[in-house]
Formats: sequence, C-alpha cells, structure tokens
Amino acid sequence: MPAMFRTVERTAGGVRLLDQRRLPGEACYVECRTPREVVEAMRAMVVRGAPAIGVAAAYALAMGASGERSRSAADFARGWAEICATVEAARPTAVNLRWAVRRMDRVARDLLEGGVAVDEVVRRLEAEAASIEAEDLAACRAIGRHGADLVPDGATVLTHCNAGGLATAGYGTALGVVRGAVEAGRRLRVLADETRPLLQGARLTAWELMQDGIETVVIVDGAAGSLMQRGEVQLVVVGADRIAANGDVANKIGTYPLAVLAREHGIPFYVAAPLSTFDPHCPDGAGIPIEQRDPDEVVSFSGQRVAPPGVGVFNPAFDVTPARLISAIVTDRGVARPPLAAALAAQLATVGASPTDASPTERP
Amino acid sequence: MPAMFRTVERTAGGVRLLDQRRLPGEACYVECRTPREVVEAMRAMVVRGAPAIGVAAAYALAMGASGERSRSAADFARGWAEICATVEAARPTAVNLRWAVRRMDRVARDLLEGGVAVDEVVRRLEAEAASIEAEDLAACRAIGRHGADLVPDGATVLTHCNAGGLATAGYGTALGVVRGAVEAGRRLRVLADETRPLLQGARLTAWELMQDGIETVVIVDGAAGSLMQRGEVQLVVVGADRIAANGDVANKIGTYPLAVLAREHGIPFYVAAPLSTFDPHCPDGAGIPIEQRDPDEVVSFSGQRVAPPGVGVFNPAFDVTPARLISAIVTDRGVARPPLAAALAAQLATVGASPTDASPTERP
Repeated sequence: MPAMFRTVERTAGGVRLLDQRRLPGEACYVECRTPREVVEAMRAMVVRGAPAIGVAAAYALAMGASGERSRSAADFARGWAEICATVEAARPTAVNLRWAVRRMDRVARDLLEGGVAVDEVVRRLEAEAASIEAEDLAACRAIGRHGADLVPDGATVLTHCNAGGLATAGYGTALGVVRGAVEAGRRLRVLADETRPLLQGARLTAWELMQDGIETVVIVDGAAGSLMQRGEVQLVVVGADRIAANGDVANKIGTYPLAVLAREHGIPFYVAAPLSTFDPHCPDGAGIPIEQRDPDEVVSFSGQRVAPPGVGVFNPAFDVTPARLISAIVTDRGVARPPLAAALAAQLATVGASPTDASPTERP
Repeated sequence: MPAMFRTVERTAGGVRLLDQRRLPGEACYVECRTPREVVEAMRAMVVRGAPAIGVAAAYALAMGASGERSRSAADFARGWAEICATVEAARPTAVNLRWAVRRMDRVARDLLEGGVAVDEVVRRLEAEAASIEAEDLAACRAIGRHGADLVPDGATVLTHCNAGGLATAGYGTALGVVRGAVEAGRRLRVLADETRPLLQGARLTAWELMQDGIETVVIVDGAAGSLMQRGEVQLVVVGADRIAANGDVANKIGTYPLAVLAREHGIPFYVAAPLSTFDPHCPDGAGIPIEQRDPDEVVSFSGQRVAPPGVGVFNPAFDVTPARLISAIVTDRGVARPPLAAALAAQLATVGASPTDASPTERP
C-alpha cells in the first residue's frame, strides 16, 4: 500500500482512521477525539481487520490516557480502567482488541504500582501504542517472508474479505503473503471474493492490490467453488480474527465454505495472522464468540432496501474453520503446520509468554 | 403465489412479463410487442428461471407467428425459422428455452408440411404455448407432491436463488417442494441464500414465500456453511437450469458449494425440476454451456460502483453440481435417486420421448 495511506494514525488531536466504508470511491479520514469515538468507528467498520483494530484500540487508550493526564494517580487509575473496559467491549470476536487493551493495561498498572508519575505513565502508554503499531507492521512483513514460498510461480491465489494493509498497520497478513511472494519474484494473480455483506473484497482488497499493480479479479462469493472445480485456483490464503489453541480459526463469514471446498479439490488452505491473533486460553472454535451484526447490512444497500420488509435476516460476521481443514498457519514466527496445536504452542513458547497473557489476573 | 401475480402471460397485444428486476420494491409489468423484445427481457432478467424462460419463449413464438399470419405459407415458414433462431439464442444455459422452441417448431413444421393454412397454424401455436404454460404449472404441482415427503416436520430448508413461482409458470420447483410440504402439513422454515450478484434469493424467494406466510430468513451466500456446521439446516433444495444425462446439474452460481457443504455435513441435497429441464443429449456437466454475464452485475449496485475502476471481474451465471453430490432429483414424474442416470432415463421413458427430442432433425 502506498505510504500516503495510513490505516490508523495517532495525531496531535486524536486518532485518525482511513474511512474504509467509503473506499474505493473516496479516500477520506475520520478523526476521533475520544476513545468512545474510536469504539463507535470500530463498530461502524470505519476501521476493521483484527490487527488494525488492535492498533486502533492501543491508540484509543493512549489518547484516553492523555486526556486524564492532569488528574491524581488514583483518579487516573479509575478513569483508565473505565476507558479500557469501554474499548475492550467494542467488538467481541477479534482477539487482537483484547490483546492490545491488556498489553496497554499491564504497562499502565505496572507503572502506577511502581509509583511512576501520571505524566510519565501517559508518555509510556503513547510509546507502547506506537510499538504495537510498529510491531504489527513488522509482523506482517515477517508473515510475507515466511509465506512467500507457499505461493508457486504463476499461481492464482484466492482470498476472502480484506486481510491486507487496510486490515493491519500496513502490508497485510493474507495479502502480506501475496506481497511477500511478489517481492520474491513470483508472478501471480489474486481472485478476490467480494465478501458479502460489506464487500471488503471488492472494495478494499481490489483497491489496495491495484495500487500495488497486482492483477486482481473480483468474483461473487458463490463463484469460488466453480473456479476451484475448473482448476483455476492454486491456493487459498485468508486472515484470522481469532485462532484457538487447537488451531481452529474464526474469520469473516464465508471463510469456512472456502476451506471445505479447498479440501474437496486438494487445494492448500492457508491462514495468515500475527501471534497477537492467537488466543491460547480458548481451547477450540466453539469458545470463540461470534458477533451478530445489523440485518440492514444484508438487506439494504446504500439506503436502498433489497429484501421485502419484515423478512427474517441472520447476519453472523464470522465463521469458524476447524483446524483439520487448514494446511498451515503463517505467523510472524514462521509456518505452523499440522498438528497445529503443537506447532502454535511451540511458536508461542519462542516469545516467552502467550500474547493474551498481558493481564496476569485474567489467566484461567 | 397469489393469483394476482402472473410471471408470464400472453395478452391480446403481446407477452406480459412481471418485471423481476424491480421486485420486491414494485410489482410492475413489461409488455413485449415482438419476439425480439421478449429476448431482450430474458437477457435483462425481467423474466428468469429455466421453466419461466421456456414459457416466455413459447409465447414469444406464438406472438411472432401471429404477426406473420397474413403471409403465404412459404413466407411464414421463412419468418418462423428466423423467429425460432432469435428466441433460441436468447440465453445459452437453460435448456427449457431450447426445449420450448423445438416443441413449438415441431408443431409448426408438422402442420405446414401437412398443408394446414397459416391462420390455423398460428391458432395451434397459440394453443401449444398455452399448453406449455399449463403443463409447467401442473409439473410444478406434481414436483410439490412428490417432494413433500422429503421434508421432515420442523425442518429448516436451505434454498439458493429463486426456483419458485417466479421462475416457473407458478408454484415453483424447489419452492414447489416447500409448498408441497406445507400443504402436506409440515411445519418448516426456509433459509434463503441472498444469491449474488442479482439477489434473487433476498428479493424474489423472500417475497414470494412471505406472500404465502412461510417463515423465511435471508442470509448472505457465505453464511450457509456456518449454519450447516451448527446443525441448523435439515435439507437443501434447489432448482436447475439444465440436467445432463448422467445427473450433473447446472444451476445458479453458488449452488455447487452448497452441494459440497451438504455432503460434508451429511445433509441431503435435492434438485427439483420438470422433465423439460433434462437434456439427455448432454452426456455430463462438462457439455453444458455456462453463460458469462456483464461484470457490472458484480461491481455495480443501482448504478453505484463498488469496486475500483479497471479491476478484473469474472461473472459466470451458473455452476455445475456433479451427480455424485445429489441425493435425489425431484421431477414431475417422481423422485429420481442414485444412480441418477438410470433413474432419469427411466422417467424419460415414461413420457415416450425425451423432452429435447422435439426437433427430429436435431437428433444426434
């Protein structure tokens, strides 16, 4: 993605978000002045994608802390706890949100318990949020390096939703693998599922890949099976909103059917995500909360209703792909292959602590 | 479907089509004055659904014949041949179109060869078209009776696109099975895949089922797998645009993934279609031509573009579900179970000749 576009940015006055609802028609920004405004922007899908939500949450907390900087340590701590609770409740499925909040919270608590002045705590929280953003970008680039060799020269790569620079601090996870392969000299083509209901594939994946000059073909979600059947897909790579300890993966609704279809056709199915997307405390996919979203996302388009009034609508935002259907999970630490539970545990061990252990009091 | 709505109707002045592009917002009609206008209406999806296309084709031919009634027999025959060629070329996948044209053509040729006066030929063609419509409605009702017992009480039935009264002369094929089950006293609920790109599920299936008071829930196409995974689907029933001799079925894009998913979850996958949808001269699905449609159907909505300009789009209107994934095909003659090739051949034998044998000179 060109440097002029930043998905999430901490500005002097707040947190600036590229408004992904209006892409590709317009590239404009929403400036959030309070943590609550960032939460609303997350719910409205101004910013989306698990890693990007984590970065936005970190900056929302830094901004919130900054707003409390003139208070006493005790008052700051109370205000901080409220801000953390507000931000963590923004959306339920993407674990990076919880991960970022708990990481920031641990920094604040440790410093406050150590008697560090509020002003310095705020400064350190700003730095921590900037680190989260920088680490996410670095993690995506590492995912790209590790995943590049999974893409054969001349391949057509099918992806779903947007797990690109727009879903992260930049570069992307699934699209990080695509970019890594391109940087490694592979010729490739991307098939982008349009990804109903919010069309992140048609709108966002197509937009950012075209900026990079990567050939992209948009299809309706229902066309992926037929293309696999005709031998026109060499691999599938998607992002993740949460990965359970056993390797089950929650991702955008419509991902699970792709995994079943890929298995049916002997096509490798890869998931790409930073370690911040792992939730080792969640034993399997059954424990992942699935967000139900507004029926209007399905039955309305630009204010125009497409289904008859009164009809029922079921609009789950995510589904769960069981580990047995996943050929490998590409993380910033390498390529985890089945058995995924053991491979993921080994990767987590290399970083010392599990990513969601940020709040020690929350350990099960 | 209430009696006040008719999908296709021969009027004094032409052929009247319920404009399915504008449903459910408006129920209005397009009046076609020439066969060419019916062809354009088929291409624009004013009328769609294989059986309804067959009925519309028959009436287009009757109207065309009527317009040539004052000509000599030789001139009439030449004009008739042109009209048949024009109508048959309207859309490539639905075999009911070819079937209806050849059935009408055989009537015309037999009468002309027998020296029957043009006026009388026209009268007989009008009657034949009316028979095609009446037979289609009767076939749908028979499909409903045969299919009713496939639906357990309390079932949730998943369907794709619209294979209802709007896709036929009335009552429907897949929705004929639903209606047959309701008439047999079953309580049921229908999950309607919205069916991108043209949203026939959200717009048409939801509309006509709500008219009948049948509980309907609309989902995005990508959500079907997740609902199957959670045990919320008891059977899948879809229509067909063409059925090959071996039982392979061409139907709306997105059907094949449902069949793969149904097999994965041990859920029966049924196809419902009249015998006019069979093409015994097509040995298997590889021989079925798949219509490619305008990319704008995917990347535009109500004139608003959703994907970036210049992006590639692949928009096949249909896919092919192999016979091995189909639990049964419900026709007006009964329930054909695997091995489908033999079961279908036996059903065809009961009607004496294969439906697409209407033009003897075209036999292979």
